[in-house]
Amino acid sequence: MSSIIPETPDAEQRMLRLIEELYPICRSITGEGVRQTLSIVSRELPLRIHEVSTGTPVFDWTVPKEWNVRDAWVKRARGEKVVDFRQSNLHVLGYSSPIHRIVSRDELLAHLHSVPEHPRWIPYRNSFYRENWGFCVAHDQLSEFDDPEYEVFVDSTLSDGSLTYGEFEVVGSVPDEILIWTHVCHPSLCNDNLSGIAVASQLAQAIAQASPHHSFRFVFAPATIGAITWLAMNESRVRRIVAGLVLACVGDAGHPNYMRSRRGNARVDRAAEYALREVGQKFEVLPFSPYGYDQRQFCSPGFDLPVGCFMRTPNGAYPQYHTSGDNLDIIDGPSLLSSLAIVRRILGILEADRFYINQNPKCEPQLGKRGIYAAIGGRQREGHDEMALLWVLNLSDSRHSLLDIAERSGIPFAAIARAAGVLLECGLLLPTSEAGSEGRST
Amino acid sequence: MSSIIPETPDAEQRMLRLIEELYPICRSITGEGVRQTLSIVSRELPLRIHEVSTGTPVFDWTVPKEWNVRDAWVKRARGEKVVDFRQSNLHVLGYSSPIHRIVSRDELLAHLHSVPEHPRWIPYRNSFYRENWGFCVAHDQLSEFDDPEYEVFVDSTLSDGSLTYGEFEVVGSVPDEILIWTHVCHPSLCNDNLSGIAVASQLAQAIAQASPHHSFRFVFAPATIGAITWLAMNESRVRRIVAGLVLACVGDAGHPNYMRSRRGNARVDRAAEYALREVGQKFEVLPFSPYGYDQRQFCSPGFDLPVGCFMRTPNGAYPQYHTSGDNLDIIDGPSLLSSLAIVRRILGILEADRFYINQNPKCEPQLGKRGIYAAIGGRQREGHDEMALLWVLNLSDSRHSLLDIAERSGIPFAAIARAAGVLLECGLLLPTSEAGSEGRST
Amino acid sequence: MSSIIPETPDAEQRMLRLIEELYPICRSITGEGVRQTLSIVSRELPLRIHEVSTGTPVFDWTVPKEWNVRDAWVKRARGEKVVDFRQSNLHVLGYSSPIHRIVSRDELLAHLHSVPEHPRWIPYRNSFYRENWGFCVAHDQLSEFDDPEYEVFVDSTLSDGSLTYGEFEVVGSVPDEILIWTHVCHPSLCNDNLSGIAVASQLAQAIAQASPHHSFRFVFAPATIGAITWLAMNESRVRRIVAGLVLACVGDAGHPNYMRSRRGNARVDRAAEYALREVGQKFEVLPFSPYGYDQRQFCSPGFDLPVGCFMRTPNGAYPQYHTSGDNLDIIDGPSLLSSLAIVRRILGILEADRFYINQNPKCEPQLGKRGIYAAIGGRQREGHDEMALLWVLNLSDSRHSLLDIAERSGIPFAAIARAAGVLLECGLLLPTSEAGSEGRST
Repeated sequence: MSSIIPETPDAEQRMLRLIEELYPICRSITGEGVRQTLSIVSRELPLRIHEVSTGTPVFDWTVPKEWNVRDAWVKRARGEKVVDFRQSNLHVLGYSSPIHRIVSRDELLAHLHSVPEHPRWIPYRNSFYRENWGFCVAHDQLSEFDDPEYEVFVDSTLSDGSLTYGEFEVVGSVPDEILIWTHVCHPSLCNDNLSGIAVASQLAQAIAQASPHHSFRFVFAPATIGAITWLAMNESRVRRIVAGLVLACVGDAGHPNYMRSRRGNARVDRAAEYALREVGQKFEVLPFSPYGYDQRQFCSPGFDLPVGCFMRTPNGAYPQYHTSGDNLDIIDGPSLLSSLAIVRRILGILEADRFYINQNPKCEPQLGKRGIYAAIGGRQREGHDEMALLWVLNLSDSRHSLLDIAERSGIPFAAIARAAGVLLECGLLLPTSEAGSEGRST
Repeated sequence: MSSIIPETPDAEQRMLRLIEELYPICRSITGEGVRQTLSIVSRELPLRIHEVSTGTPVFDWTVPKEWNVRDAWVKRARGEKVVDFRQSNLHVLGYSSPIHRIVSRDELLAHLHSVPEHPRWIPYRNSFYRENWGFCVAHDQLSEFDDPEYEVFVDSTLSDGSLTYGEFEVVGSVPDEILIWTHVCHPSLCNDNLSGIAVASQLAQAIAQASPHHSFRFVFAPATIGAITWLAMNESRVRRIVAGLVLACVGDAGHPNYMRSRRGNARVDRAAEYALREVGQKFEVLPFSPYGYDQRQFCSPGFDLPVGCFMRTPNGAYPQYHTSGDNLDIIDGPSLLSSLAIVRRILGILEADRFYINQNPKCEPQLGKRGIYAAIGGRQREGHDEMALLWVLNLSDSRHSLLDIAERSGIPFAAIARAAGVLLECGLLLPTSEAGSEGRST
Repeated sequence: MSSIIPETPDAEQRMLRLIEELYPICRSITGEGVRQTLSIVSRELPLRIHEVSTGTPVFDWTVPKEWNVRDAWVKRARGEKVVDFRQSNLHVLGYSSPIHRIVSRDELLAHLHSVPEHPRWIPYRNSFYRENWGFCVAHDQLSEFDDPEYEVFVDSTLSDGSLTYGEFEVVGSVPDEILIWTHVCHPSLCNDNLSGIAVASQLAQAIAQASPHHSFRFVFAPATIGAITWLAMNESRVRRIVAGLVLACVGDAGHPNYMRSRRGNARVDRAAEYALREVGQKFEVLPFSPYGYDQRQFCSPGFDLPVGCFMRTPNGAYPQYHTSGDNLDIIDGPSLLSSLAIVRRILGILEADRFYINQNPKCEPQLGKRGIYAAIGGRQREGHDEMALLWVLNLSDSRHSLLDIAERSGIPFAAIARAAGVLLECGLLLPTSEAGSEGRST
């Protein structure tokens, strides 16, 4: 029987403190903000930091220039700052090229981004792959731009450098790997995705304390180009991945959501649905979509990895999404803790789920002589434990895993896993190479 | 991307006029009535006419003698005609043998056919494979037969000749063939099946104007023995048929019905159901049954072709079925036009449905650098078009056709097909031999 | 076409009389009670009796010592019998070891078994595999045990001997075997399972009168160890079993229940569900469970035989289960007769179900020239018989059995079987080796 993923002390407070510390940093898909973020995470978790140089070809893409920004503002002619990066790093268009000149009101307006539906929030916008300059402002503020000319200033650099990501690995009993992935490229946005960073950090510390069956790999990387870069750097190794979870938007008060992998019925998909059902609160399991977080790269047809995505309220489904409204107010400790608990439960199932072969497949073995069955016969068996023994014996034919058995029998997975442990000790079961195992069969 | 089936001008009026012109002709499974019918259709459509001689063995059957009838009546002793072929060609039993003699009232009654449930309508009956004479009359009329004797006269011939059918072929880019089949053997009955002849004629003209991907074959032939004869004559070629539709009873005001092929889930079945769902009006999809129109021959186990049947009210489900009540009054232009539109939509899907392989299957390709994706990031994508691009890329692995992708994504087929066209132009997709294609795999 | 299982005369009375005669006998998994029971059954049915010696290894088990009991009682110090085997053989713990001594009240109580929930009934308990002595009493009686000491006496023997079972075989046209299994090891309990013995006896007599297609084997054996022993003795032959039914608890007034085999969709499972649906009364089909009657041995993963279990109220689901309440009052003739009729119907389907190949698979054969189709055409076919002919012809492609055809067409199995008989006579069908047959494929 496998280790259960342990709890970590003070998890709620530590997640909240990490998020508060990371919140002010101006992150993007490259640059010092990512490095600073990974460095803070590294205090809790010894990350291995990878730098991939600008210009490196990664499948259909190229690692872009590194972007850093020191300051940015828009001033009225009379010198008054009306937009100021130092008040919110969302004000500057991500990857804005440097500029410093007087522009007409019309030219400025053409470079201002706002969200009419949410007029008080600054939107998060970027222009990663087309050089452009720009600012993001609350829609309400647009009417204030009534001067004929403005001075615009973006003190940014776009230059050769590298894309940065961090990895933390826990070597398990088998090389089969479970991937936990979270993106680190968003500036001052909390739920998307400082929440994911915080939950992944706690989880990594928990796994590091266990002696897991599977190997685990935690990756903190920029979204999209980071995932593409990581896959390009690790192409030969990703077949080891037997399950994966992308963590995103896991700190708000919405109910949990799990988006299935492209395969739709991968073991991680079934474990996630099973775990969510067991928790007994409202949840949704969403069909795969090629849109959303980085599972879209892992689930591209050339990889088709069994990677799903765990969220609370999904991207785009809460009004503050990708605006300054996604701040410390919309996340809370209990939601973070609940997300952590659910993911621990999913991983606990994946860790314990195994294929066995009944070593006495013809008729039932005599459990009584092994001391694991009641001595006085004639009574109806109703306890989970004896029924669990019978179910595990009956279905352990190398085609049914413990999760299969739990689902078919209706007996809780924990009882099934416990029964398998008892039978394994008796020598009535042997583990078998998981013929139906994902990640190897393809 | 494939051609869409074009509309034809004045289709409604032209279908109605064709039906009116064909209505008076006395058709049967052989004879001049069929030839005259095909000759009228040939004015719009250059049919190739085939004649198969009496006595030709066709599987378990033999092409029967050719039947023609010039006149037929029943007279009272005092000379009054009480049944007259010239008033309705339904009055004579189909394939009635010639007769001219005085018969007793009892003998006559034994040769009169009527429908008690619909006492004012003359039924359509025949005796193709057992020589017999007979007349069909309105049930109400039976009580008038109160003379002791009658003179009966059928001026028919049953002699060696041939069975006639007409074909119209449009050669497409590939030899894979779509079959449109309609029967031409019923005398003065409108919905069954002058309506089918009219819709098939319009459709053939539309396809002829297009440059279709598939080859199309339109067959106008007698039911049952005509289908059996055609299959016997074309046995070696029918494996080309990747989809087929039998058209029957397509002119009444009832809602559309599609009866699946024997396979149940052939591409034509899925395209038909998809098209009917898209139309958004009431419809039914019926399971296959070995009864009904000529799909029962195409779907016999030795052929098992992917051929379904499109109808409005099915055979036997409207009271006028196979009686003189199935006249010009029960069909109407809008229903014919709606049937034509639905079949065009089904064929449009079959034409455009294709398997592709994503040429950049590892991670998403960079759509932005190809100019087919928004330049400013951070916003939620909601338009069908960008999602369609992502879905087509994700599922184009040679196992999913565009229809599969439309069904799984919930995005309209037209948007999926449009996205595939864009990606094909970019070189991001290549067509693949349709591994799962029907008609080849067997 | 196959024989229908005939009715047997006076079945109800004969089943009731058999149960009444068997009721007083003290049975266990070995011993004279089983022999006496089989000897009474043999008056109606020439059973072949098998004896398997104590100590014979049978898979993980060993045939136990033979147990016989002549008398047993508990007396107060002043000689009054408070528990008496002669009043109910349930009073003695099954397989109780011999004892004769004075015991303290506390020691006695530790060896008394009762059911608090049903304080007036004596429970049925045993200790087959751990030597122990004991008595079973009504819970209400426990308070009467207020003396400080009691004399306990069990005049039993536990010694080398054998385990006994009886078999009755009817050789059919093919070696493929249908197994009817019923257990004979319970002392004075009626529904569980004298009812099963009675129904199986009638059934065997009915089959013996027929000339069945399948071979039939009826086994009357102790539960669990009897099934394990029988499987061990017959291991090389059980692959012949294409279907099996365990009969238990078939005499009470509850509705019928069928528990599926482990395969879940074996032919016996489908035949049972079909038969129960046809009967039109309330019934339940239960998923397989590795608990319950001897199907748990037949369905162990090393055998995985297509054996289900037919019951009325299942084990444990009626309050009298495994207590003295399971007496002659809870069974009744009409329920026994209804069970017999349902099992005959299931077996009738299994007997008639067959795979055929249409000898004229290309297009429909001309049924009219064979005299099996109406001569006058044009009318709608509605009768089951003509539709049955068309369905059997259409689906007889060696992949669909008659039961498949009945299920898909919605036409009653009997009509489908009748149509197959007609077509077989015409030479339009040939039987085919049942490619999908169970019991051979594995």
